[in-house]
Amino acid sequence: MFNKIKKFVLGKSLRSKQLGEQKFNVFWGLPILASDAISSVAYAGEEILYVLVPIVALAAYAQMFYVSLAIVALLCILVFSYRQTIDAYPCGGGSYIVAHDNLGVIPGLTAAATLSIDYVLTVAVSACAGTAAITSALPSLLPHKILMTLFFIFILTIGNLRGLKDSSKMFGVPTYTFIISILIMIVYGVFKVKVLGFVPVDLVQMPEVTGDLTIFLILRAFAAGCTALTGVEAVSNGIPNFREPSQKNAKFVLVLLALVVLAIFSGTSYLATLYHAVPNPDQTVIAQIAMQVFGNGVFYYFMQFTTALILIMAANTAFNDFPLLLSLLAKDSYVPRQFAQRGGRLNYSNGIDFLALAAGILVVVFNGETHLLLPLYAVGVFASFTLSQSGMWLRWVKNKTPGWRYKAFINGLGAMVTFITMIILGVTKFMTGAWIVCILVPIFIYGMLQIKSHYNVVAEQLRLPLPEVANAMSWREREINHVIVPVASINRASLKALLYAKEISKNQNIIAFHVAMNEQFAKELRAMWEDFQFGIPLVIYASPYRDSVKPLLAFIASQEYAAKKDDIITIVLPEVIVNKKWMNILHNQTSYFMRGELIHDPRIAIITVPFQLKK
Amino acid sequence: MFNKIKKFVLGKSLRSKQLGEQKFNVFWGLPILASDAISSVAYAGEEILYVLVPIVALAAYAQMFYVSLAIVALLCILVFSYRQTIDAYPCGGGSYIVAHDNLGVIPGLTAAATLSIDYVLTVAVSACAGTAAITSALPSLLPHKILMTLFFIFILTIGNLRGLKDSSKMFGVPTYTFIISILIMIVYGVFKVKVLGFVPVDLVQMPEVTGDLTIFLILRAFAAGCTALTGVEAVSNGIPNFREPSQKNAKFVLVLLALVVLAIFSGTSYLATLYHAVPNPDQTVIAQIAMQVFGNGVFYYFMQFTTALILIMAANTAFNDFPLLLSLLAKDSYVPRQFAQRGGRLNYSNGIDFLALAAGILVVVFNGETHLLLPLYAVGVFASFTLSQSGMWLRWVKNKTPGWRYKAFINGLGAMVTFITMIILGVTKFMTGAWIVCILVPIFIYGMLQIKSHYNVVAEQLRLPLPEVANAMSWREREINHVIVPVASINRASLKALLYAKEISKNQNIIAFHVAMNEQFAKELRAMWEDFQFGIPLVIYASPYRDSVKPLLAFIASQEYAAKKDDIITIVLPEVIVNKKWMNILHNQTSYFMRGELIHDPRIAIITVPFQLKK
Repeated sequence: MFNKIKKFVLGKSLRSKQLGEQKFNVFWGLPILASDAISSVAYAGEEILYVLVPIVALAAYAQMFYVSLAIVALLCILVFSYRQTIDAYPCGGGSYIVAHDNLGVIPGLTAAATLSIDYVLTVAVSACAGTAAITSALPSLLPHKILMTLFFIFILTIGNLRGLKDSSKMFGVPTYTFIISILIMIVYGVFKVKVLGFVPVDLVQMPEVTGDLTIFLILRAFAAGCTALTGVEAVSNGIPNFREPSQKNAKFVLVLLALVVLAIFSGTSYLATLYHAVPNPDQTVIAQIAMQVFGNGVFYYFMQFTTALILIMAANTAFNDFPLLLSLLAKDSYVPRQFAQRGGRLNYSNGIDFLALAAGILVVVFNGETHLLLPLYAVGVFASFTLSQSGMWLRWVKNKTPGWRYKAFINGLGAMVTFITMIILGVTKFMTGAWIVCILVPIFIYGMLQIKSHYNVVAEQLRLPLPEVANAMSWREREINHVIVPVASINRASLKALLYAKEISKNQNIIAFHVAMNEQFAKELRAMWEDFQFGIPLVIYASPYRDSVKPLLAFIASQEYAAKKDDIITIVLPEVIVNKKWMNILHNQTSYFMRGELIHDPRIAIITVPFQLKK
Repeated sequence: MFNKIKKFVLGKSLRSKQLGEQKFNVFWGLPILASDAISSVAYAGEEILYVLVPIVALAAYAQMFYVSLAIVALLCILVFSYRQTIDAYPCGGGSYIVAHDNLGVIPGLTAAATLSIDYVLTVAVSACAGTAAITSALPSLLPHKILMTLFFIFILTIGNLRGLKDSSKMFGVPTYTFIISILIMIVYGVFKVKVLGFVPVDLVQMPEVTGDLTIFLILRAFAAGCTALTGVEAVSNGIPNFREPSQKNAKFVLVLLALVVLAIFSGTSYLATLYHAVPNPDQTVIAQIAMQVFGNGVFYYFMQFTTALILIMAANTAFNDFPLLLSLLAKDSYVPRQFAQRGGRLNYSNGIDFLALAAGILVVVFNGETHLLLPLYAVGVFASFTLSQSGMWLRWVKNKTPGWRYKAFINGLGAMVTFITMIILGVTKFMTGAWIVCILVPIFIYGMLQIKSHYNVVAEQLRLPLPEVANAMSWREREINHVIVPVASINRASLKALLYAKEISKNQNIIAFHVAMNEQFAKELRAMWEDFQFGIPLVIYASPYRDSVKPLLAFIASQEYAAKKDDIITIVLPEVIVNKKWMNILHNQTSYFMRGELIHDPRIAIITVPFQLKK
């Protein structure tokens, strides 16, 4: 039943050989990897105006032009730098790989930690934004906002668990719809003013000038707009998800992404200037422009709907890239190894589940109030940009491959610019939340190093040198296997266990062991035991404290073989297997607790002889 | 660490032989078993006035006299009836036992279900009432009321888990303090008016008369006051908790309980009449009386404090009796058997934990609003009274032991009166919540019957007839044990498992089995296997869907012995045991999942060969 539902929702399991079919081409890869960047862009212009308009009023539009120019320039530098990274790392060149490879372990883990924080935030924030878009239209749903947000995360998780191929189409369509509608709005919006001579009416009153234009103000505006660039990393890290030729495809997608971001960002900024959109809590800048360009009709609402949708889609970039990052960390033993296993649909399902869980917890803990999460955002991305670009720069400088000077210049420029941006973001956002990132990152790094060291210690202890085997094989013969069968009463399950003990014991060195909770019952059992003639002696130990395991441990300790390191003690546990899982609560889980206590003795092996109930 | 804290909080484990020392004598048994009744009494007068005063104003006091008289008469009948029950059932004669024994299974389970509901409600309601007493004094604590209520339940649970002896003293002192202070108040209050000639001033304005005195009104007042009688059952059920001579002690406690209830109930009712206390939400009737008797001084606040405390203490009767009831049900297989096991401190700790959990859930679900729970209350107790008394009546009528006519009359009268009371309570409270009880009881009965039937079916399947044993023992020799050792890689853990397999296989019919997730790794493993010369063949199956168990099942199904019912297949699982539990999340739980899938095949036995890590 459960399996059927799972199969229906997630689709049939895929063979490992089908991995190639699951990768995406340029057309469907673009919307997945670009959705984070594009959704940021939809709001980047507004973010800039939010900083500038309340202080300098009308002068904001002129400043927005320069700020936008700076961001576009930064984008171009990043695209050039990352194209070089893709060339150098054909199997995926995310910040973690590049920094780990060229700068060392700690910079690599720093990049991984900052990116992880950002990806979890992206999912939480975008799901909350989707909910906010709906509850602002239907306020009666407000009491259910947490549930709705979790539902969005659930839908995104299901979509992504279905696998790259399915999810890229499911989630690609809304992204393309948004791109096309916003491009139509830009073209028609400019045409309406410049050619048809439409004179926009100010929908919202422009506020009074309240202060001077300072460098800090411009920097804050720049920082606010920088969220538009967070999608670039995902393409470079996600090379293995592209169809062959994957490097070429990834580079192509990177250029397309830059062009789309450029067109939408500069287009909406220009429209905001033309139509004098003023940011305010009741109507977004995009909505104000759409209202004037298309009037209060169907297309206006369609525009609103697609903008709400793209906000949720932003989470897809994280769902695509974060599990990939975790799988790389798992392969290097920095996180639990299970993250490197591909699930039924050939994606890193553990990573997807973990991302959904972490984002869900954030949503519940912060009660769906994203403004508390936003300041934690974006600093991490630029930290990882900086580390990745510095790593690339060092690589060229060290290796001195042909043309290294030019390449080092590009990546060095990238590193410098992203470093400055990180500092700006850090300073402007430090007090409101970026300090949390500064605390979390070292904790995550420490945790990852601990995990790596655990795996190393375990591997060392498990390592088996060849000469030891022959030794062990010959010396084995001297050992004696002592078999103990704990019996609670005489029944079919204990008979099966006793017979099994006879089967595996070479010298029939078997005893049955009863823990007497009740003296009367123990006496009856002793009497019956004789009648049944099992041919196996029964030892009964009283349990004055009603413990079902300790008397057995005491018995083992009392035997002379307890002192011998080489003897084997085999515990044969009869276990009644019920048909339905809930029935387990009706039975003592004695054998479960016994396993848990006995398993720490190196001489002991534990056998479960299951007795299956038919009804 | 955890064990040390547990030992400190709950006390050292006790030997089964110490059970006798843990029982209580008359002096400490009374407050535990009477606290429910006494705490109800503290509010019964107020409950009656709450019904009467708003309708008939001053005439209420005269009516309260008659209503109180009826309740006292009912109490006397119950005490006489229950003394007979205690005589007839020396090992505990709760409603469940008496009804099950004399009326049949369904009446017995009905009594058990109704009582269970009442006990869980008692704990939830009394903990909430304790919190309400504190938050009305310190309103700033209101936001934490759920936490505080859960904390009270936690404290009561800890106290009761420590065992009868400790808890009876811990919780007996506040009960005695309350009894003594209220008796002082009654004596001095009457003395002050009758001898010193004090004329009480009405603290609260008496309302206008708004309606007539109807039969229904009087019945509602009677129903409201009947909560005073809920503690009688606990004494009769709890006989085994008394020191020897337990029957005599229980009967003595029953009489003492009746006397205390009588004194407090009639005393407070009389004081309320003398001092014209008017129930209102700001000050309880007891508080109004105390204010007039003692003035606004230390003793007034002490009285308030002990009244608040006794409300919480009421839960103790439930903590004492409910686990006992569950243990009886468990012995008869109507609830999971674990409820019949005594814990470290010789009490039925599983029942105590379950009661705390159920009450805690109720508190959280109802957000600590007890007025939603109160209507569910009391009907259950009278249903179980009726069943118990009818059972006793039938017993006398059937057995016709000497003096049966007199005894049958007493119990018959008890049955009739409690039945009428139940009807009154049911009718007056049906719409506000008693209907929930009517739905829950059949569900509980159905569940208990299902559990019983499960245990019967299991016992039938496990039953081992003597002749089968000899047969099984001789026929065993023909079987063959096929040993399979799943290996993930060559390491010390798999070596240990392989050596163990050699030890237990008589004919060395062993194969090592590798599930190939990765073709390249499988090839390397194959090559290394030859070098290591284990002398055991290695079978490798590919896992196209990355499942770690299914290829093994496929292999077993492909072997010719798969068709033979009698062959044994032993799976020897190497299992790496980590030092700390949290480390388990860093390792695949493959062997856990393997056990879960393999355990349903009757031919398979599963061996865990643990390999303990040292670091």
